[in-house]
Amino acid sequence: MQAISVGLLGLGTVGSGVVRIIENHQDKLMHQVGCPIKVKKILVQDVEKERSVKVDPSLLTVNPADIMEDPEIEVVIEVMGGIEDTREHLIQALRSKKNIVTANKDLMAVHGSELLTVANENGCDLFFEASVAGGIPILRSLVDGLASDRITKMMGIVNGTTNYILTKMSQEGLAYDSVLKEAQQLGYAEANPASDVEGLDAARKMAIMASLGFSMKIDLDDVKFKGITTVTEEDLQYGKQLGYTMKLLGIAVLDGDKVEVCVEPALLPSTHPLASVNNEYNAVYVYGEAVGETMFYGPGAGSLPTATAVVSDLVGVVKNMRLGVNGSSFVTPQYEKQLKDDGEVNSKHFLRLHVHDEVGVFSKITSLFASHNVSFEKILQMPLKEKELAEIVVVTHQASLKDYQDILMELRDLKFVKDVKSSYRVEGSVGA
Amino acid sequence: MQAISVGLLGLGTVGSGVVRIIENHQDKLMHQVGCPIKVKKILVQDVEKERSVKVDPSLLTVNPADIMEDPEIEVVIEVMGGIEDTREHLIQALRSKKNIVTANKDLMAVHGSELLTVANENGCDLFFEASVAGGIPILRSLVDGLASDRITKMMGIVNGTTNYILTKMSQEGLAYDSVLKEAQQLGYAEANPASDVEGLDAARKMAIMASLGFSMKIDLDDVKFKGITTVTEEDLQYGKQLGYTMKLLGIAVLDGDKVEVCVEPALLPSTHPLASVNNEYNAVYVYGEAVGETMFYGPGAGSLPTATAVVSDLVGVVKNMRLGVNGSSFVTPQYEKQLKDDGEVNSKHFLRLHVHDEVGVFSKITSLFASHNVSFEKILQMPLKEKELAEIVVVTHQASLKDYQDILMELRDLKFVKDVKSSYRVEGSVGA
Repeated sequence: MQAISVGLLGLGTVGSGVVRIIENHQDKLMHQVGCPIKVKKILVQDVEKERSVKVDPSLLTVNPADIMEDPEIEVVIEVMGGIEDTREHLIQALRSKKNIVTANKDLMAVHGSELLTVANENGCDLFFEASVAGGIPILRSLVDGLASDRITKMMGIVNGTTNYILTKMSQEGLAYDSVLKEAQQLGYAEANPASDVEGLDAARKMAIMASLGFSMKIDLDDVKFKGITTVTEEDLQYGKQLGYTMKLLGIAVLDGDKVEVCVEPALLPSTHPLASVNNEYNAVYVYGEAVGETMFYGPGAGSLPTATAVVSDLVGVVKNMRLGVNGSSFVTPQYEKQLKDDGEVNSKHFLRLHVHDEVGVFSKITSLFASHNVSFEKILQMPLKEKELAEIVVVTHQASLKDYQDILMELRDLKFVKDVKSSYRVEGSVGA
Repeated sequence: MQAISVGLLGLGTVGSGVVRIIENHQDKLMHQVGCPIKVKKILVQDVEKERSVKVDPSLLTVNPADIMEDPEIEVVIEVMGGIEDTREHLIQALRSKKNIVTANKDLMAVHGSELLTVANENGCDLFFEASVAGGIPILRSLVDGLASDRITKMMGIVNGTTNYILTKMSQEGLAYDSVLKEAQQLGYAEANPASDVEGLDAARKMAIMASLGFSMKIDLDDVKFKGITTVTEEDLQYGKQLGYTMKLLGIAVLDGDKVEVCVEPALLPSTHPLASVNNEYNAVYVYGEAVGETMFYGPGAGSLPTATAVVSDLVGVVKNMRLGVNGSSFVTPQYEKQLKDDGEVNSKHFLRLHVHDEVGVFSKITSLFASHNVSFEKILQMPLKEKELAEIVVVTHQASLKDYQDILMELRDLKFVKDVKSSYRVEGSVGA
């Protein structure tokens, strides 16, 4: 049986992992797809570079055409990263009727729907399981496993760096800056951690997941995101005291026909399955109307888990090739996207204030909330070391984001409110 | 586009759920498979019976031939339960080239490999996701998602009844009997709970999972199982004190070419992801050489989650029908089964003894363990209320089951050992 030839774009840590898995698992792959799979060409930036994986030097090339214009290569695996140039390569590959497997969430979040359309037009597969939470087969589960259900909510811890930082801050009572530094030394955070800690990476993954889970075309621009750079140890400790754990949470909600997709540091009841997902691990919680609560847990990144997801997708593509059914796997969006406005976004909120400790202050705060029809679920008040100041922490019942933002504006204008220290969304009530 | 006709065997709670989902999700199903799906005939025991779901009476029949001999019916969904008669029905259906979706773990654990062979010979699909942990797409994940990895360990909480009972016993310090009674009143346990509480149900599911995860033909007879009927509150409390949580655990391990599959109450570190899976929820932890630790969490039973899994399988079958590729989905086992003997099964063990509180007793116990090359990780000794007796709880380091059983035998013969109160496997070390 003739081997299937694969072209690999990129030979970094993930690419090396892919090469290793394809070599070491030939028997298993052969058993599943019925023919050998071989890497025929690898696009790199520098053919002379020392690499951790042993590769026949004749496989390496700096010229994309060696892959795109080779009719023998039927599958292109993209693990080089980057957005615009990579998009060009992949569109060229699809037009040459090559199937694609990519691990590139940045690309998929920005150009995903265009690429899927081109794939469809050319009868090619475009698989991207590895682009979200590398070690968790979440996209396949959303599309296949929950095919007969209506998914109404997804919550994800989909960035390992920020989860590592928040876990350490929470468990060891450390400040953000010092944990970030440690994470950088350990290789859990990049030298420039901005896209992780500011929530952009998670936002990209949520756009991809929401598109599949809700069967709508959700773009990165539709995802509001906020990172963890301003989270303090105090916030984590007060959260804990009230029974909550802080996570950088991707939240995607479908109410009727309208969706909300966002990423922000949020508080979850410590008994929630997501609350015990620690360190660099990822997890995605999915609520389906029929199935109820499910959760998928695993490593979110790392070269081997990501490479595993890439090779799993490759197996799927090759099976489809042998069945002659490429291009039919992911369905086109079924619904028109309708985004919620702030008046339609509902949640509980955690709010921490410093106020001047005067008579009647608490009652004034209460009536301000009441005038917007927002009531409290939990209240904590404590004197501060600074004389004549008190700390107030409240958790509201469900309130619309608009009402809550109006309250925040009005609070800031009140003379006795010295400072609005922090405010977080509270998630994870039963069944939601 | 012509509708796909489905025959349903059984209209209990799961069957009713299937009927409801197919009715309520026609649009979504249509969008995914490109044609309507309709239930054409339903096999029941009594057509006159009152039912929770409204069904056109003309659909009901007591005659299996109305389904098996109707050439229009292309898919048979089996949710009637039972083993031998049901096997006959399904073999007849497969020989009539009807694809099968079943939720029947009892049947699959006993006759799974025969049925899969017949399906293969007839070019039919036989899907059974709903037979293991209804709400969790674990079988699909084992086959597809981890296709490029080598799975070396699976641990599952795959029985909701026993997990509910152990959770309540642990959280509320109650005795087994009283929690079982409560579970029966709440409908979480059957009037005759034997197959749940004695581990048979979990053993069936582990046989199915191990077969797919390790690509070997594992039968129910290969699974050693033990239930929770002798677990005491004391065991749970001592476990807790040493940092462990008790779960009825299905364990499937692959070492080299050899496997062990068992079900027994076991202790897990309370920080292990499985330890916080509570109440009637199920979860399956999968360790793959490349991917590392992953976990799938969700409802294990319930009519709607199970029905959802059935309809997801139905969607898979119908997609394959439209692509003309039925019968190619699950691969045949790749490896010959080789079971470990007791000398090759390794784990830590928790042991609780009552001994006469004499000088030198502990040193004699220590040297007995040492003579079998087994050492201790944790030790707890306490005087008992009964005079001159002491309670000793130890957790060993890794030891072979054979060595450990020899130790237990010798311990029972020692004069100063009044009673071996309990003994449990300890699981969940890092990476295992």
